[in-house]
Amino acid sequence: MKATVMYGAGDVRIENVADPGIVDPTDALVRVTRACICGSDLWPYKDLDPNDPPRVMGHEAIGVVEDVGSAVTTVKRGDFVIMPFAFSDGTCEFCAEGLNTSCIHGGFFGNPEVAGAQAEAVRVPQADGTLYTVARSEDAAVLGSLLTLSDVMGTGYHAALMAAVDEGERVAVVGDGAVGLCGVIAANLLGAEQIIIMGRHAGRIELAKDFGATDVVSERGDEAIERVRELTGGYGVHAVLECVGSDQAMDTSMRIVRPGGAVGRVGVPHYSAIPEAGNMFRHNVTVSGGPAPVRAYIDDLLPLILEGEIEPGRVFDRTVGLEEVPEGYRAMNDREALKVMIAP
Amino acid sequence: MKATVMYGAGDVRIENVADPGIVDPTDALVRVTRACICGSDLWPYKDLDPNDPPRVMGHEAIGVVEDVGSAVTTVKRGDFVIMPFAFSDGTCEFCAEGLNTSCIHGGFFGNPEVAGAQAEAVRVPQADGTLYTVARSEDAAVLGSLLTLSDVMGTGYHAALMAAVDEGERVAVVGDGAVGLCGVIAANLLGAEQIIIMGRHAGRIELAKDFGATDVVSERGDEAIERVRELTGGYGVHAVLECVGSDQAMDTSMRIVRPGGAVGRVGVPHYSAIPEAGNMFRHNVTVSGGPAPVRAYIDDLLPLILEGEIEPGRVFDRTVGLEEVPEGYRAMNDREALKVMIAP
Repeated sequence: MKATVMYGAGDVRIENVADPGIVDPTDALVRVTRACICGSDLWPYKDLDPNDPPRVMGHEAIGVVEDVGSAVTTVKRGDFVIMPFAFSDGTCEFCAEGLNTSCIHGGFFGNPEVAGAQAEAVRVPQADGTLYTVARSEDAAVLGSLLTLSDVMGTGYHAALMAAVDEGERVAVVGDGAVGLCGVIAANLLGAEQIIIMGRHAGRIELAKDFGATDVVSERGDEAIERVRELTGGYGVHAVLECVGSDQAMDTSMRIVRPGGAVGRVGVPHYSAIPEAGNMFRHNVTVSGGPAPVRAYIDDLLPLILEGEIEPGRVFDRTVGLEEVPEGYRAMNDREALKVMIAP
Repeated sequence: MKATVMYGAGDVRIENVADPGIVDPTDALVRVTRACICGSDLWPYKDLDPNDPPRVMGHEAIGVVEDVGSAVTTVKRGDFVIMPFAFSDGTCEFCAEGLNTSCIHGGFFGNPEVAGAQAEAVRVPQADGTLYTVARSEDAAVLGSLLTLSDVMGTGYHAALMAAVDEGERVAVVGDGAVGLCGVIAANLLGAEQIIIMGRHAGRIELAKDFGATDVVSERGDEAIERVRELTGGYGVHAVLECVGSDQAMDTSMRIVRPGGAVGRVGVPHYSAIPEAGNMFRHNVTVSGGPAPVRAYIDDLLPLILEGEIEPGRVFDRTVGLEEVPEGYRAMNDREALKVMIAP
């Protein structure tokens, strides 16, 4: 089958690879209906060492179950499923607490051990705990929104929950990528009164406003911090959704949060320590977050999509076939495209 | 009057200073019945620059109101009061949320601006919001426990709340000082099933066990971490109460916390960044805490003391008069005394 293979920074190729199949009795084989490119895929696109093993990329997908291992009981051939970006057994003590991304038997897609979903098909370990069966939709908009449940919508929701967004609060979203925009949706769902989107890309800002952002801060650095303070009565926001992962984004987050507030981190951190530990302490600021247990959030979010209450699929502004995936990476990396959907 | 003045590291003197009086209409003057030496007083005792202005030390006290300013309405002459270590107006938006240590009109005792309570009397700004009137007790044990509400018991409780200690959970307390021991009391109150005290001082460990500690880890460094993992089924604890503030204590805390768990920091940080930001993210670990809003916790904790359910006053293992305060500092710094009470 055809799959997306990354060989090094900027080097993404579509290649014929061996067809995936059942390896472990808990596996399922899923024919990919839609996959997509993630903001986090852009990190190796910027810095993957060509001496590292090539990776079959992709960790977000919806598709149809084509085969299951002998131990799989809850998913069957023909089921239309959402594939969360992490696989998990659904039964360990962490899964039981809703922290599927720390599953004892879990792991991630798109690495040398478990191939990714930017392909015609994908092998899904721990199928019973991982896959979420939904009614198949022919509506492209709904398909897109279902696809966001595999990562970005659940991740934005996680950021909002970890930042403890509550009714009537002031919220800032650092990052105007797809996760940040989904964070706006989530903050709105949780009842935030003020939602400040921090970004400068006109199209994304418009979408953020549609999703519920009340204010825009397009400044950078100290000016951005000053502007947030002005907008919030001088003290900053109760909750920051850090949706980038750079040291600059984290530094900004720590400087716009209000005493007693919280920073929910979902941007994969490209820094080794949390800055401002002294100020963070002085002001009783909480830092939380990590890889979102999106599997656990589908129960909450799916009904909202099916009832049309949220439309996270609007983050997709381009759809490509597999052959055009390298161009999709380029477009996202150059911030021409917000989020690229793949129809294999 | 006599007061405790610190001139530099290791240089604590009892001196005659000007009698305090009402300065602002919101002040009260409190005659000190009992004060004490705090673990945090040992930081300047170790490193105060003799070129800095001398400080009248002390931020924990119970006493009798001797005079009030014209704007004070809820506290009156003769009231027996608890003085929390931070003063606060009780009405600003942060106080209203229970975060009195971030009060817009608040501040701290024992610094060049507001003199401390290791003295015969102390001026208390924002008296209405700060002081908590209680029935006077003649019972020395109760007096000690009431005094802990000015700092250590509320601070241990804050650590437990910020670490989100919940029923049936596994908890580790880093630090066997008075705050750590009060953290054990708090973890027990909140229903922790396992409470691991990390320390090696025999007397303190015994007290920790009396307070509810179920396990003791006396190892240090990597061995301590290994031991905690052994005691917790391999994954670490749900909640860490970091009651020291050194980089080593914080590093240990970050390495013994379970995925999805939290570190509640109440040790004044002597490090500039939170380490292990990558692991912290990978495992969805939360870091929270800061100066405890102890004023807000008195409502919760006072009844437990008066009913004899908790006895945090047992952390005091020595009582001195004012003249012996320098010796009290030495004894605490040399870990001969756990916590020294002052009867001026």
